[in-house]
Amino acid sequence: MSSILYPRMAVIGCGLIGSSVIHAARASGVVGEVAVADASAAARERIVALGFADEVTADASDACRDADLVVFATPPLTIGVVAAEVAGALKPGATVTDVGSVKAAVADAFAKVLPATVFAIPGHPIAGTERSGPDAGFATLFEGRWTILTPRQSEDPAYAAATARLTAFWESLGAHVETMDERHHDLVLAMTSHLPHLIAYNIVGTAADLEEVTQAEVIKYSAGGFRDFTRIAASDPIMWRDVFLANKDAVLEILGRFTEDLQALSRAIRWGEGDKLQELFTRTREIRRGVIAAGQETPEPDFGRQRRTP
Amino acid sequence: MSSILYPRMAVIGCGLIGSSVIHAARASGVVGEVAVADASAAARERIVALGFADEVTADASDACRDADLVVFATPPLTIGVVAAEVAGALKPGATVTDVGSVKAAVADAFAKVLPATVFAIPGHPIAGTERSGPDAGFATLFEGRWTILTPRQSEDPAYAAATARLTAFWESLGAHVETMDERHHDLVLAMTSHLPHLIAYNIVGTAADLEEVTQAEVIKYSAGGFRDFTRIAASDPIMWRDVFLANKDAVLEILGRFTEDLQALSRAIRWGEGDKLQELFTRTREIRRGVIAAGQETPEPDFGRQRRTP
Repeated sequence: MSSILYPRMAVIGCGLIGSSVIHAARASGVVGEVAVADASAAARERIVALGFADEVTADASDACRDADLVVFATPPLTIGVVAAEVAGALKPGATVTDVGSVKAAVADAFAKVLPATVFAIPGHPIAGTERSGPDAGFATLFEGRWTILTPRQSEDPAYAAATARLTAFWESLGAHVETMDERHHDLVLAMTSHLPHLIAYNIVGTAADLEEVTQAEVIKYSAGGFRDFTRIAASDPIMWRDVFLANKDAVLEILGRFTEDLQALSRAIRWGEGDKLQELFTRTREIRRGVIAAGQETPEPDFGRQRRTP
Repeated sequence: MSSILYPRMAVIGCGLIGSSVIHAARASGVVGEVAVADASAAARERIVALGFADEVTADASDACRDADLVVFATPPLTIGVVAAEVAGALKPGATVTDVGSVKAAVADAFAKVLPATVFAIPGHPIAGTERSGPDAGFATLFEGRWTILTPRQSEDPAYAAATARLTAFWESLGAHVETMDERHHDLVLAMTSHLPHLIAYNIVGTAADLEEVTQAEVIKYSAGGFRDFTRIAASDPIMWRDVFLANKDAVLEILGRFTEDLQALSRAIRWGEGDKLQELFTRTREIRRGVIAAGQETPEPDFGRQRRTP
């Protein structure tokens, strides 16, 4: 158990990530009491039943009052709206962060609506599953994964201390922590997360709309590769709508690269350029090895799906 | 244990699928002796060391001699070439099949080079992992997965009996069996397997080539979704080169659909059409549920990667 870093933590929005932060923070002992605000009555009912929060409320300002750490875990476009609502209730000296997949939009909203008396430090744990809601969280979600913080440029030693404390918090939850500029974050994540989700959603949509191949056939023969894409295409629709709207420029830039490359690959297939195909397909194996060597993926074949069979 | 369906089975090419066929056929007792031919000296050495074959040879004709079932498990474009080489060594009445991801090209090659005295029945088990080579195989690979057979139109009761026997063989290995026209197979698989591999290879290539985002960053932050794609982009390069060359028309047709849909999605992002995004992202969740309900995917979150943590 670590010592308490934040006597009171407020989590605003309690889905997969919000509830996982609470489980992990409680397991590591870095928070005292935990207040949760969620706009959904059904979610609040589940949170009460699951018993992982000391207070459960519909009113984000109530949850934030006297909190030493406020974690926004709502869909990205909601963060700025709710931050404006709770601004007057924040305790001077509190740290305000978030867990959204887009950082420039959140940094801009924080700068605009939060009082100068709090330490606003946007954040993003690169972890998740395709599940949503307060039942989806678990304490080990962040273990060995990276959390990126995007603190603003500041000479203020108190701001630096707040950033160091938030770093210690995430490390207590099992994460590695990196800091970077919010715009660079948004470009990196457009590549490693947003584009993968976009093309997964897209291919599942394409498959659903074909006339010559039935949906039953797509499902039956999905083990040829397609089923992998259905996992991330089952992620939370509202959250992902917000990600693409809030990170439009970086997503369109990376999507443009992807499309260019895909056209070149299409041309190589049309003209039977086997060498070009083989060169690419050989090169991509290296990246997989790197991901496994970096501890970001199971080394077992097929994600370990076959683990239970001899 | 089932009774023996084929006293002697020859497997030509012994990678992931070839070795899995042998493990599964031995485990279920449907074959007597097993002869393996592989063109690679390194592979033959491993096959001997692993001890799952009765005969190991470089000469496919030797393996085929007196075989009741011949299974071609080489990369797709090699199948026709080797089939021509062994044609003279095949036992009259033998069943000749394959396990390739493309069926029209194989059906055409079989029709052209095999003698009328054998039963040529192309086949394709929809199963695999990203691993390659004779060490990668295991007996349960086909359990609960589908194998598609594409027998030719025939009034010959002996051909029908051979198809029924091959169906029973695959069922003994744990597979469900479906028969269909080889051209329809190639269109269905272009959607459920070939396009998914193509875009996975492509996105990993795009990520490797970015200037503004380093390869180290792509690897560190891959848990946001990208890492899923690296798995199938680590599949055998030669095999996949052959698949795209041998199934060019269907792949380009399905790729055209995918690209159209992606352009519409790109436009919706550019113009901030959140409703369109949310509608698609909600719809795609259904397909995931269908894949799980059909027994083609683990119901556990994140493919069960987190299974061992509480």
